[in-house]
Amino acid sequence: MTAPTRSRLAPDERRSQLLDLGVRLLATRSLDELSIDLLAEEAGISRGLLYHYFGNKHAFHEAVVRRAADDLIAQTAPPADGDPIERLQVSLAAYVDYVLANFEGYVSLLKGAAGGNEALRAIYEEVRGVLSERIFLEDPDGELIADTPRNRLVVRGWSAMIEELVITWGTDQRAGRTDVTKDELLEVIVSSLPALIGDAAG
Amino acid sequence: MTAPTRSRLAPDERRSQLLDLGVRLLATRSLDELSIDLLAEEAGISRGLLYHYFGNKHAFHEAVVRRAADDLIAQTAPPADGDPIERLQVSLAAYVDYVLANFEGYVSLLKGAAGGNEALRAIYEEVRGVLSERIFLEDPDGELIADTPRNRLVVRGWSAMIEELVITWGTDQRAGRTDVTKDELLEVIVSSLPALIGDAAG
Repeated sequence: MTAPTRSRLAPDERRSQLLDLGVRLLATRSLDELSIDLLAEEAGISRGLLYHYFGNKHAFHEAVVRRAADDLIAQTAPPADGDPIERLQVSLAAYVDYVLANFEGYVSLLKGAAGGNEALRAIYEEVRGVLSERIFLEDPDGELIADTPRNRLVVRGWSAMIEELVITWGTDQRAGRTDVTKDELLEVIVSSLPALIGDAAG
Repeated sequence: MTAPTRSRLAPDERRSQLLDLGVRLLATRSLDELSIDLLAEEAGISRGLLYHYFGNKHAFHEAVVRRAADDLIAQTAPPADGDPIERLQVSLAAYVDYVLANFEGYVSLLKGAAGGNEALRAIYEEVRGVLSERIFLEDPDGELIADTPRNRLVVRGWSAMIEELVITWGTDQRAGRTDVTKDELLEVIVSSLPALIGDAAG
């Protein structure tokens, strides 16, 4: 209930820096491995201060995943220019790069969201909604895909396919057991929506 | 350590009947809702006898899901005749029917498998492997799809899409919020693999 002061922003900035650090740590770790202790050590500040910023481990995880989701949405924004297919291609390539660069955290988010963690599920569904909506928003005249109930269903299924392709390829590639190159992966992903729409939209 | 007797088969048959009942109950319930108590009530036998057959709730769930998986694999077997695309169509229609008829249990299996239940995950992955392998086994000459690392990756992504399409449509349909008919759903599903392969296999 105190009045705002000039120093008010500092904690927000500090919190924001800590979230960025959390996202970086999450890139190569699961959520289970991302503890307040680890963040305190990496940030060089006390656990007590982190609890002050984030409350508890669940709230900390939720805040980090929220920040990661915002990053994903920002980094996959289609370019302003180009036809819908070209812009989709750039956006999809950025999505593949983001998932591969943040692999451990992304996989653990999927697991948490699918396994019944409602907070993670809500963030996951929101991101999915934004990315799917973008397909239609970026193509208002329906040059690539008309906005129909049927095509919205197709885009939902297609999103699941894209995710599975990147996760499967990333897992196999890390285990050294895929003969598919990243360029082939990208080409499969980029060509898939036009292929599905061209055929399925009749 | 007793010698087999003529009555030896009876417990197996009884256990098998109980599993069939478990699968029927699971069709309209999640795994969490499928308790030993419920099965005992529906089967008209004691909880103690069920613990004798299944050990504990986890083992009971695993046995029911295993039976359901066997049912799914059997019911989606492609017909002996027809070209690869026709046989795939029949198999896919059976898959859609199976998932929609066993919706609650299927969704809760997905949730359990994705959320870290290793026993459910193993069964789920096994089913997925059998259904995917079938695509190539049923098409030894590669009339529909050649057996390459790239196409195996495509089939994996496509399987995730098919599942997402059925689950999304089933959920929306139950909530009375879809304008897509079941025939449209089926047509999208059936046309998707040829579309992806025609384009992606280039």
